[in-house]
Amino acid sequence: MGQNSIPLDSAIERLLEQTPVPGKHETAPLLDALGRISFKNLDALINMPPFDSSPLDGFAICHKDLAGASRDKPAVLRVIETLYAGDAPMKPLAKGECARVMTGAPLPSGATCVVRYEDTDNGKDYVQVPLSLREYQNYRFQGEDLRIGRRLLGKGEPITAAHIGVLASQGFTEASVFMRPKVGILSTGSELIPGNQPLSPGKIYDSNRYVLGARVAVSGGEPVFGPNAADDAPAIAETVEALLKTCDFIVTTGGVSVGDRDYMPLVGEMIRAEQLFRGVRMKPGGWITGLYKAPKIVLCLSGNPGAAAISFDLLAGPVIRRLAGASRVLPRRTRGVLEEPFPKTSDNRRFVYARMEGEKVAPSFSGSGSLATLTGCNCILDIPGGTPPLSAGDSVEVILL
Amino acid sequence: MGQNSIPLDSAIERLLEQTPVPGKHETAPLLDALGRISFKNLDALINMPPFDSSPLDGFAICHKDLAGASRDKPAVLRVIETLYAGDAPMKPLAKGECARVMTGAPLPSGATCVVRYEDTDNGKDYVQVPLSLREYQNYRFQGEDLRIGRRLLGKGEPITAAHIGVLASQGFTEASVFMRPKVGILSTGSELIPGNQPLSPGKIYDSNRYVLGARVAVSGGEPVFGPNAADDAPAIAETVEALLKTCDFIVTTGGVSVGDRDYMPLVGEMIRAEQLFRGVRMKPGGWITGLYKAPKIVLCLSGNPGAAAISFDLLAGPVIRRLAGASRVLPRRTRGVLEEPFPKTSDNRRFVYARMEGEKVAPSFSGSGSLATLTGCNCILDIPGGTPPLSAGDSVEVILL
Repeated sequence: MGQNSIPLDSAIERLLEQTPVPGKHETAPLLDALGRISFKNLDALINMPPFDSSPLDGFAICHKDLAGASRDKPAVLRVIETLYAGDAPMKPLAKGECARVMTGAPLPSGATCVVRYEDTDNGKDYVQVPLSLREYQNYRFQGEDLRIGRRLLGKGEPITAAHIGVLASQGFTEASVFMRPKVGILSTGSELIPGNQPLSPGKIYDSNRYVLGARVAVSGGEPVFGPNAADDAPAIAETVEALLKTCDFIVTTGGVSVGDRDYMPLVGEMIRAEQLFRGVRMKPGGWITGLYKAPKIVLCLSGNPGAAAISFDLLAGPVIRRLAGASRVLPRRTRGVLEEPFPKTSDNRRFVYARMEGEKVAPSFSGSGSLATLTGCNCILDIPGGTPPLSAGDSVEVILL
Repeated sequence: MGQNSIPLDSAIERLLEQTPVPGKHETAPLLDALGRISFKNLDALINMPPFDSSPLDGFAICHKDLAGASRDKPAVLRVIETLYAGDAPMKPLAKGECARVMTGAPLPSGATCVVRYEDTDNGKDYVQVPLSLREYQNYRFQGEDLRIGRRLLGKGEPITAAHIGVLASQGFTEASVFMRPKVGILSTGSELIPGNQPLSPGKIYDSNRYVLGARVAVSGGEPVFGPNAADDAPAIAETVEALLKTCDFIVTTGGVSVGDRDYMPLVGEMIRAEQLFRGVRMKPGGWITGLYKAPKIVLCLSGNPGAAAISFDLLAGPVIRRLAGASRVLPRRTRGVLEEPFPKTSDNRRFVYARMEGEKVAPSFSGSGSLATLTGCNCILDIPGGTPPLSAGDSVEVILL
């Protein structure tokens, strides 16, 4: 890598410094908001349950009326009304009175517990209760599950099925969400041909637009594809400029190392972009160029599909999540235990796709170019520079995908 | 629960026995196939790389021509052509010849290794190489990453970003995917009112349609909403029959326990459905009725939102995944270690939403009705019937969501 190469963390920092915090948002019907990023802090507006209610089918009673009741000497109470879920109680309980209540029904004033049907004679006008209950036994308090003011969903949080449920229980039918950022994707290289046609000698199918396109979608962005450009700097520059007009961020692949046709740094000059960095001290895919054409970033990754995937996950993912409004943009990390040896020496910091189950981590050992071994991976091993070959059982740092 | 209640595993088994294996499929553009279920087994049609190629920018050479080369006595080779990625090599290497190659370029016949630019004098017509290389050093073999015939994607597998990349590298631009099943959702109960209006006394907002709708989407189905039906058996029966016409599976909430307005078993009789079971020995939400109106299932869950969510995850999720074509329909299980005590005795098998990080599991302790504590949960504790209160540090069975 070049002498101007920088550590990965510095590269991520420079990119995030130049990433604008987005403000564009839209209103989505609640179910369509699944997986989107919340634009607002939402707090509980009503208590849940909204009123004291019965957790079961039975009789609402004042516990004092049951004092000393037993099988031999049951308490006998007058049933003054029947309350279904959805009813509003009309009558307070007087001494010696009770109300028949269904699950979810509001409790009348004076009731301090609920006795199950099955524990009574289930009488119609009068009911016999052969046991006593504690105060507030089988009693759901107003606000027991959720009190007014509690934070339900934070600005920048991804909206899950659980959020949708709790928002609906508060009467929300819509949610305010950040707009998805448009991410331009451009794969360069005269070896690339589109799929669905025979492969000619020396050519490979362009997988990068798909590798990156799917990752843009998973990161919360909307992929926008430029036409495939040949290894020709003016044509690439023109396409990048066109994408800059409509997109919030651009990722290119190919043309970043030191081969005779590695044009991306030149393209950066042609579009008068600032060079944020050239080269990141990592393997694979360290030939990364970061360009900045205010207020937008053009991130130029290796053309090698496996390297493009891993450097996208490490560098482009955080930028897209920031543009998408997410408050957490860096992936979670944890420690794991290697299930099998990793036989390579890592002079530079090295990243390897892997599969983690429980604490066990199995690296998907492969050259940087293999897409086939990525399926089933759910994390990336982060091996510090200067690490000798690793043995099974070694503790390793893991980035969760 | 009633005397006819059955264990959870038997209930799941009866439901899956009656779930038809789907055959309807469609062709989706590759990127739109993200997250869908593959309808076909797809195997590699070409080797990756498709030809022997260079992993770096340098000179393709026969290693025998470098035997004994050193800084003092470099090998000198004639450069006969330059090969870019995408080129087809025209000339085989004779003794003493080499070709300049860029990363990804095909290697000419006769080449057995590649020396990096940086390790040579980078000469134009003749190049000096001051070191020797092993046979096949810096050499990518045809099919090294992927051989013809290797399984890339199995029928019934969910399509990930990694699959999309490897399919694209094979020239696929589309994928054949199962159609999403249509899942009818009907929430019953006169206490329910739609959101976005003031709450009247005794009423609650209908969150179940959203709780279930979001879960249907996450499970790979398409939710179809019936009109909210009051607690009136003929009206509910009519709505269920209408949903049966267009949907592959129906889930209802409410009306399943023994309260005076628990109509779902009666609705089953009115639509002349077979009763697969009534009552499942689990907490919460054990009042579940399974109905079968050939060839479709109507699954009737508790109206309590938390209980509806957990019984949906345990019973409806597998049915929807089966209808969606997934080969794995039951959730993954693992063991974890309780981070805090769980103070309840579990007479029946009990399920509790929880959050697992590494091996540690924190139960979201709540009554069965709380949706608020579900946010952030990623698993369900599975506590066997007859378990006393649990202590921090106890080993527990966990169902991963």
